[in-house]
Amino acid sequence: MIQTIIKTKVIGVDISLTSTTCAVVDLRGNILSRESFATKDYPNVNEYVTHLCNVLVDFIDANGGYDAIRSIGISCPSANALTGCIENSPNMPWKGVIPLAALVRDRVGMSVAVINDSFASALGEKTFGCAHGMSDFTVVTIGHGLGCGTFVNGKLEYGSDGFAGELGHTCVEDHGRQCECGLKGCLETYVAEKGLIRTAKDLMAESDKPSLMRDIANITPKEITECCDKGDELAQEVYARAGYKLGLAFANFAAINNPEAIIIAGGVSRAGKWLFLPTRKSFEDHLFYNIKGKVRLLLTSLDHADRDVLGASAMAWTVKEYSLFK
Amino acid sequence: MIQTIIKTKVIGVDISLTSTTCAVVDLRGNILSRESFATKDYPNVNEYVTHLCNVLVDFIDANGGYDAIRSIGISCPSANALTGCIENSPNMPWKGVIPLAALVRDRVGMSVAVINDSFASALGEKTFGCAHGMSDFTVVTIGHGLGCGTFVNGKLEYGSDGFAGELGHTCVEDHGRQCECGLKGCLETYVAEKGLIRTAKDLMAESDKPSLMRDIANITPKEITECCDKGDELAQEVYARAGYKLGLAFANFAAINNPEAIIIAGGVSRAGKWLFLPTRKSFEDHLFYNIKGKVRLLLTSLDHADRDVLGASAMAWTVKEYSLFK
Repeated sequence: MIQTIIKTKVIGVDISLTSTTCAVVDLRGNILSRESFATKDYPNVNEYVTHLCNVLVDFIDANGGYDAIRSIGISCPSANALTGCIENSPNMPWKGVIPLAALVRDRVGMSVAVINDSFASALGEKTFGCAHGMSDFTVVTIGHGLGCGTFVNGKLEYGSDGFAGELGHTCVEDHGRQCECGLKGCLETYVAEKGLIRTAKDLMAESDKPSLMRDIANITPKEITECCDKGDELAQEVYARAGYKLGLAFANFAAINNPEAIIIAGGVSRAGKWLFLPTRKSFEDHLFYNIKGKVRLLLTSLDHADRDVLGASAMAWTVKEYSLFK
Repeated sequence: MIQTIIKTKVIGVDISLTSTTCAVVDLRGNILSRESFATKDYPNVNEYVTHLCNVLVDFIDANGGYDAIRSIGISCPSANALTGCIENSPNMPWKGVIPLAALVRDRVGMSVAVINDSFASALGEKTFGCAHGMSDFTVVTIGHGLGCGTFVNGKLEYGSDGFAGELGHTCVEDHGRQCECGLKGCLETYVAEKGLIRTAKDLMAESDKPSLMRDIANITPKEITECCDKGDELAQEVYARAGYKLGLAFANFAAINNPEAIIIAGGVSRAGKWLFLPTRKSFEDHLFYNIKGKVRLLLTSLDHADRDVLGASAMAWTVKEYSLFK
């Protein structure tokens, strides 16, 4: 069969705890159309998939139809690219193993690839962001949790079972803070959202220093950052402590993998210099001598709202086009 | 040019601190001939290279000549496969950057690839050992130092500058033991030869327990193992402590890379169960839940004397044949 229609668009779908975003993306990473709905309105996975497929079919129709759109890439926490399933997510409302790629492919009639959110970030940065042209790098996404997506020899590292990238669950303090995963001292418990909040509370308890943070009930990382901007030293110490642990973990990562760059993304990275500067200091202090000055520490170049959906769209290009003739 | 002679042998060269071993290896990993000389007799690198090349030319002549042997692979600490050079080795007697591959190629008239000893071990296990058929695994060599060679997506991970694999210089105890590299708390300072000796001395100092180790001046890891075999509890505690740190570092490695297996090799691995059992216990205790039971911990299947030379020979197959017509 001679291919007569060249399709230059794909759909990227980003599923997060709160919302699901579908976007039509062209091959240069331009988002041409976007549509969202609340993920948490569908605690039942069958109802969720039915709704998602209805949205997708309408979305395809409204954006040039099956002749214009090539395939679908879906980014979702705990998605396994090797199996096409969401597998035992600790955070998403749907339990067990959900064969998402197959379900969507069969109902929508278009090829579907799935990928977890950390890997999608890495693929997005590689294809459309600041990792363009790099062969060996990692993108570390810090938000509710902490995960990374790593390229080695120009290819995404899925790991033997598709579970690579759990940098957030490497131990940075033996017998340290209790993590939700069951282990102790996980990086995530010091650097991800809940970890920052815990450090803020610890600091307020152990220090007599005045702090704007003391006036805020149920403080959030965003509010901690705002306090930092106002010159609050205790708030700055929250990120200093997180940055120390993060830099140490990055140095360990770099010793093992010798990446060209470590790229920080995710909600917590919005703290900017308050997190970045202590992280860089600790990173350089802990870095093995033969790679000193060789590993760049970067902040994501992609917009937070776009990155995962762009990464998902990049994933869509990795599957063959769906064909009834195959 | 039509290739009329199929060459089925290569030469593997293993350069260590003490000795240099050349071996003719066929494509199935059979060592057909072997020759060694003392590395430390040549503290001047020019004299070393001259001698090595003389040995190689005679060795080639004695083993079927240039029509029988395809290429040369050299394993050496601090060798960089990407540049073909030995780069700023902290342990070898030759300082600075030595373009070993080019020097040997031009004098011997045969293609040469170089690779560091950790990567050679991994390549040896992949080609001829217990990692045969695996795509994602690491080989951890523990001896004078501690390094690893990792395969990701079926390919050796060199890293962006060729310096991947410094697992021995990941921090397992913040503000811990001083390492020769300048950092503190490096895994190597607890698990490699000197680390074990230090732990033995620490234990003898802090404990009142009787121990066979107390009767041995300048104790070595081999002697610590012999004490373990005789039922010495303090000697067993040396490996128990080392295994705890090693298992923790392995769990961190596995969280990031999700390998199919972690394979332990090198002189220290001769301690066998005394090191292996506490390592496995600690590894399983610290392993992230979603890869529990999925990462195998193995001991090398290759003979210690053969592994690096086999790895070097496997490296020889990765370079194109030398040709005056090219």
